[in-house]
Parts: sequence; C-alpha cells; structure tokens
Amino acid sequence: MEKTIEIPVRSTEVDFLGHVNNAKYLEYMEWGREDWIKQAGYSFDELYNRGIGTVTVNINIDYLGECYKGDILEVKTRPVKLGNTSIVVEQAIYKKGSGKKVSKAHVTVVFIDMETRKSMPIPSFLREILQPR
Amino acid sequence: MEKTIEIPVRSTEVDFLGHVNNAKYLEYMEWGREDWIKQAGYSFDELYNRGIGTVTVNINIDYLGECYKGDILEVKTRPVKLGNTSIVVEQAIYKKGSGKKVSKAHVTVVFIDMETRKSMPIPSFLREILQPR
Amino acid sequence: MEKTIEIPVRSTEVDFLGHVNNAKYLEYMEWGREDWIKQAGYSFDELYNRGIGTVTVNINIDYLGECYKGDILEVKTRPVKLGNTSIVVEQAIYKKGSGKKVSKAHVTVVFIDMETRKSMPIPSFLREILQPR
Amino acid sequence: MEKTIEIPVRSTEVDFLGHVNNAKYLEYMEWGREDWIKQAGYSFDELYNRGIGTVTVNINIDYLGECYKGDILEVKTRPVKLGNTSIVVEQAIYKKGSGKKVSKAHVTVVFIDMETRKSMPIPSFLREILQPR
Repeated sequence: MEKTIEIPVRSTEVDFLGHVNNAKYLEYMEWGREDWIKQAGYSFDELYNRGIGTVTVNINIDYLGECYKGDILEVKTRPVKLGNTSIVVEQAIYKKGSGKKVSKAHVTVVFIDMETRKSMPIPSFLREILQPR
Repeated sequence: MEKTIEIPVRSTEVDFLGHVNNAKYLEYMEWGREDWIKQAGYSFDELYNRGIGTVTVNINIDYLGECYKGDILEVKTRPVKLGNTSIVVEQAIYKKGSGKKVSKAHVTVVFIDMETRKSMPIPSFLREILQPR
Repeated sequence: MEKTIEIPVRSTEVDFLGHVNNAKYLEYMEWGREDWIKQAGYSFDELYNRGIGTVTVNINIDYLGECYKGDILEVKTRPVKLGNTSIVVEQAIYKKGSGKKVSKAHVTVVFIDMETRKSMPIPSFLREILQPR
Repeated sequence: MEKTIEIPVRSTEVDFLGHVNNAKYLEYMEWGREDWIKQAGYSFDELYNRGIGTVTVNINIDYLGECYKGDILEVKTRPVKLGNTSIVVEQAIYKKGSGKKVSKAHVTVVFIDMETRKSMPIPSFLREILQPR
C-alpha cells in the first residue's frame, strides 16, 4: 500500500535561506509515516499501548530540490522490504502541481518489545499490511 | 531569586527574515524557567512525579529588538507575584556583550493537582523559593 | 474581515507532555496571519518588496485548553484596532468538531519603512482591508 | 581537522516520547557544521557573500541511542572525502560523561555558484582546510 499526505509549507518552516531546512524534511516524512500506518487501520500510539514499539535506526535521504513557503507538498510512503524484526519504508516528497520530486528517502524501522526494549518479530497482523507489493 | 541562562542563537532558529521568530522567544523563556526551577533545587519532572503540575495560562510578551544567528542571549527569570494557586514570573532576554534588552515577558503559571487536573494551592516548600524579594 | 485556517496537529508538534507547547501556538497564529493577509489579496512578501515591513511588538495570549496530536485546529484572525502606524489583531484557536476555544491572543503589529527601519503610517490601500468592522 | 560543539538538550527539543526526535539530530549536526567551518576561519554567510553556496544533497544517518532532556551532547565533525565539487563530512553525536555514541552520519555537500546555481569546483583556499587527514 502506498499512501499520500498533503502538507503546505508554512512561514516558520523555512530557514534563513528561505527554503525548507534539511531537518524539516524528516519531520514531514514522519508525518507521512504516522498517517500511512493510520490509514492502514492502526496508529503508533495504539501499538505502544499493546507493548509494541518502533525505533528508527537509519535514514538515508536524498535532497533533490528546494521547497519554499506556500508550496504544497505530497509525501508518499510505501514499504519496500520486510524483514523479521525490521522494515524499510520508502518515502518521497513531490511538489503538487509540477509533480517535481524534491526528496527521496529510505527509512529503516525496528520493532521492539516495549518491556525488554529489545527487537521483536513483527506481529503477523502487521506483516500483512506492511508487505511490499 | 533571579537566575540567568545563556543561549547561542543557532542557524535553524532564525526564520526566513534572518532573525529569531517571535515564537522561538517563548521556547527560550521556557528553557529559562526550566533552569530557574532546577537551580532552586527542583525540576518540573520531579514535581510531576509528586503529582504537582503546572499550566501556563497567560503570556504577555514585548518584542524590543531582533536577534540574529550567532548572538549569545541571556534569559533572566524571577518571580514577581505569588498568589494562592498561581505565580507570575518575569522574564527578560538580553544580548550578551551589548546588554541590549530584546524582550520582556510576564508568564502566569497555575499549579494543578495532576489527578483532579484542578488548580491547587502552591505547596509551602515551593512558596519559599518562589517568593518575590 | 475574519479569516480561518485549519491546522492538523502533527506528531513533532507536541512536546514531552504530549500536548502542543505554548510556543507552537504562536507559530500557528503566525500561519493564520499569513493566510489572512493573503486572502485579502496581499502577502507579507509582496509588501516587503514594496518596502513595507511589519514588526510584531507585543503578543498577549491566553491558554485556555490543551491540544493533542491528531486534533484539527481552526485559527481565526480579525483586526480589532487600527492605529496610525500599528494594528491590533485578535486571534483565537478552536478545536474543530467540539468548537472548544483553546487559545485567544491580541497581537500588536507595527508597520515600518524597510529602508529607515522606523515606523510608518499604514498605507491607505491596506487601511481599507485592515479596518475592524 | 575535527571540531566539537556541546549542546544541552532543551525541554522543547524532545518529542511526545520524551526523547530527541530523529529530525532534531539533523539540526544538531547542522549546528556542528556551522561551528566547524567557523572554527576554520570562515562562515557559510561569508562564503555566500562571495557567491559560493553549499547544498546538502544526501544524509545517511544511523540512530544508535536515545537522548533525553538535560543530556549534554557533543557533536563531532570532520571531513572524510574531498571531491572536485563536493565533500563528505562525517558527524557523530556522543553523550558527554558516558561517552556513548548516539548517532553517526555522513553528510554530502555540493558547492554551487550562487549565480548560475550549478555545481562549481571547491575553491583552493577551502580545499586546504577541508582536506581529510
């Protein structure tokens, strides 16, 4: 499943160079992942309540273009690799309208048992929706 | 008691106009209050653990000057009015070096019982250190 | 004229207490003012290009309720007092759905000549749209 | 040359999970790069004034540990690969005291001609100080 959210770039989200700072892209992508899991019928909060945590262990992000105040961005999120205890999610940011791709990232997330704080196999009810297609 | 912290203005803390955004001043002041209560021998976290919460109910802030990347700021914090369940704290931000005052604010904080979420009298062990002099 | 924007509270916009931090309210309100002036047919950027700047000199904000991740907020903006060189804007934040008011603020903005950096009379083409009704 | 800056984790820099959010690490690292170039006798602002810009094109970051409010972090920055128009900088974040490494990243930066907005060879006066040793 691939999911998309729309984000307007706000005035306080651009830096002194007038464009969205590289760190902010990661926030936009986190918002995308939150929505993605929610649209699949779950939320990270609910998973936490069941004792299932997630830890981001690596992000590899390409910056392909600049974003400015007033731009409407589309963040697309989809799973690309499902391991035993981890998943790799691919995310891309596009400018609405022109369709120009301004960023692409691979985000590696490990599932952990909230009590032991150690990695755990991804539960089967999640494997189904996290399966790359 | 008046306490001071030093804050260097960082690159991602200035906005597209090249100066510290008005909202960021409130963060700097919160950092000042955190340190102020800590220097008095307490922390908001410890108070929470004892069931004592604080809620900011009003901030009245004057913006007197601009701050730029690389500036070293001094945030000064002191109590000016102690009520039964609330306190008014005065905070000011100065530029280190020139001593220019760039902001002044009154922050009104109410103490609440974390269980009932209702206002509670300020505990006597706190009244002493929060007393304006 | 009163204008409204909708803002979803994002995961990275809540603090360690799980609610929107007091400083973030000011960012939301700035986003509201940006949109408000834009809906009136102008933008702060265009005004800057014409040599007309604005400086926020005071914000007096009441915090009336907490906001959480996933809340949809409505920020309403309208002028309440028009002076020779300054304007007072009233802004309020509501939770969509319940309609609960979570914040109210008065923001005082001074118009400045970008060259001299001194206050200037508000241009007549702006006075019309900034007039409280 | 390797340079180090110290950063205290502030209350508004931790997210709803109580730890520093993955995006904030990138801001800390940018602060480290700003200081690193400054300690070498330059600043990105001065370079911009000379028509020399820098664009971050890739960040590959490992998250190795969590950071909490009150932690003092050390961000270390050093060049590891110098190309014709680009440089790879290695950055790591440690907790002061324990010395625990909480993050490591490779940041690839391309130098651009601010007029043409195209990549340009790194000027010789910069090559010297950017040379990995």
